Amino acid sequence: MLVYGRNVARDLLKKGKNIRKIIIQDSFDDKEIISLVEKSNLRVETKTKREIDNLCSGVHQGIILDIPDYQYSELNELLDEEIIVILDHLEDPHNLGAIIRTCEAAGIKGIIIPKDRQVGVNATVMKTSVGTLDNVKVASVSNIVNAIEKLKKHNYWIVGTSLENSIDYRKIDYSGKIVLIIGNEGAGISSLVSKKCDFLAKIPMYGQTNSLNASVAAGIMIYEIIRNRK
Amino acid sequence: MLVYGRNVARDLLKKGKNIRKIIIQDSFDDKEIISLVEKSNLRVETKTKREIDNLCSGVHQGIILDIPDYQYSELNELLDEEIIVILDHLEDPHNLGAIIRTCEAAGIKGIIIPKDRQVGVNATVMKTSVGTLDNVKVASVSNIVNAIEKLKKHNYWIVGTSLENSIDYRKIDYSGKIVLIIGNEGAGISSLVSKKCDFLAKIPMYGQTNSLNASVAAGIMIYEIIRNRK
Repeated sequence: MLVYGRNVARDLLKKGKNIRKIIIQDSFDDKEIISLVEKSNLRVETKTKREIDNLCSGVHQGIILDIPDYQYSELNELLDEEIIVILDHLEDPHNLGAIIRTCEAAGIKGIIIPKDRQVGVNATVMKTSVGTLDNVKVASVSNIVNAIEKLKKHNYWIVGTSLENSIDYRKIDYSGKIVLIIGNEGAGISSLVSKKCDFLAKIPMYGQTNSLNASVAAGIMIYEIIRNRK
Repeated sequence: MLVYGRNVARDLLKKGKNIRKIIIQDSFDDKEIISLVEKSNLRVETKTKREIDNLCSGVHQGIILDIPDYQYSELNELLDEEIIVILDHLEDPHNLGAIIRTCEAAGIKGIIIPKDRQVGVNATVMKTSVGTLDNVKVASVSNIVNAIEKLKKHNYWIVGTSLENSIDYRKIDYSGKIVLIIGNEGAGISSLVSKKCDFLAKIPMYGQTNSLNASVAAGIMIYEIIRNRK
């Protein structure tokens, strides 16, 4: 896949990651990155701004890297984690990237996403998660409900976020192995998934809006879960 | 300014907001919005997708509204608020929009941004804050340090977020009138602003990343501040 932007490029080059090809704008002038590119001995193509604009839909800042697609983990590889975050059909790559970054900051290494109707680990996610993807494992599963069943057999407590039939998020006991489920930006957690939850948590709201941005809600919940653990 | 997207259009039409003109794609088929547009008696232009693409850089979903620019508040209008959030030169409109939404959800009505080198209330902010802008007051000030001086005279405690010389965000006493300062996405809070803070708070991090997305950090801090108030 093509990823882009100076921070992403600097990070991947410094880490010596597998890079197939580098595409640089003819006027590119970031000395640190140019020096990293020269040291890397990788294949480099120089293109005009217009040519690069046509290759990429985001803010590329003059550099694109062609790297192998993200390698998802298997659910089985996550079962030793104390805390796992499941994303129930998120659509916005900025949210997925920000949640990966929050998980990494909080020391959470296991993330599960569904294969269909869910944004995957793409270039925008790479950019938004700012170099933290290496420190987490993202598993892509065919069916979230089946994944939850399996996690329950491995003694995880399942905590969903919901406005209905839910209790204040500060009143839940988060000791033990915990799975946190964050719902879709518009629809929230699906009803099938919600029925599988041991606890439904609500972040109290005092305005006229009845929901938070998905990555903000995830951040508040994640820091509540780790509040008394670390 | 031109704002766009179905949610924004539906919200502004329902609220009977001041709309100068509506531009709709020829193939637009959202029945609820079409009905609202018909009832509004507003001036409507029909254009092709390509023409609308040229008017707007974001995901317009076939509808653009021309509305008056956002009317900022004066700092003086915020001085009765119990909690105020200051944004120290944020760059990303998604972050500003998400923070406005979080403030509204948390019942915080006062937000201060600097006039220069800071994203203002634009179309992306309108979209990301999903109809919550009406319930908060955003003041735009020439100088943040001067604004903080004034707020101190009005008995606010100033809490900044910082990785250095800071204490765990859970160990701060947030009673009384509180100003929370959230720093720039890359550089954080400026050193001049940081020197004016009564407390510097740190959200503990356990991974290799040393910062959270600005709107996620704001969400965690805001819900900590209101934790024992409501």
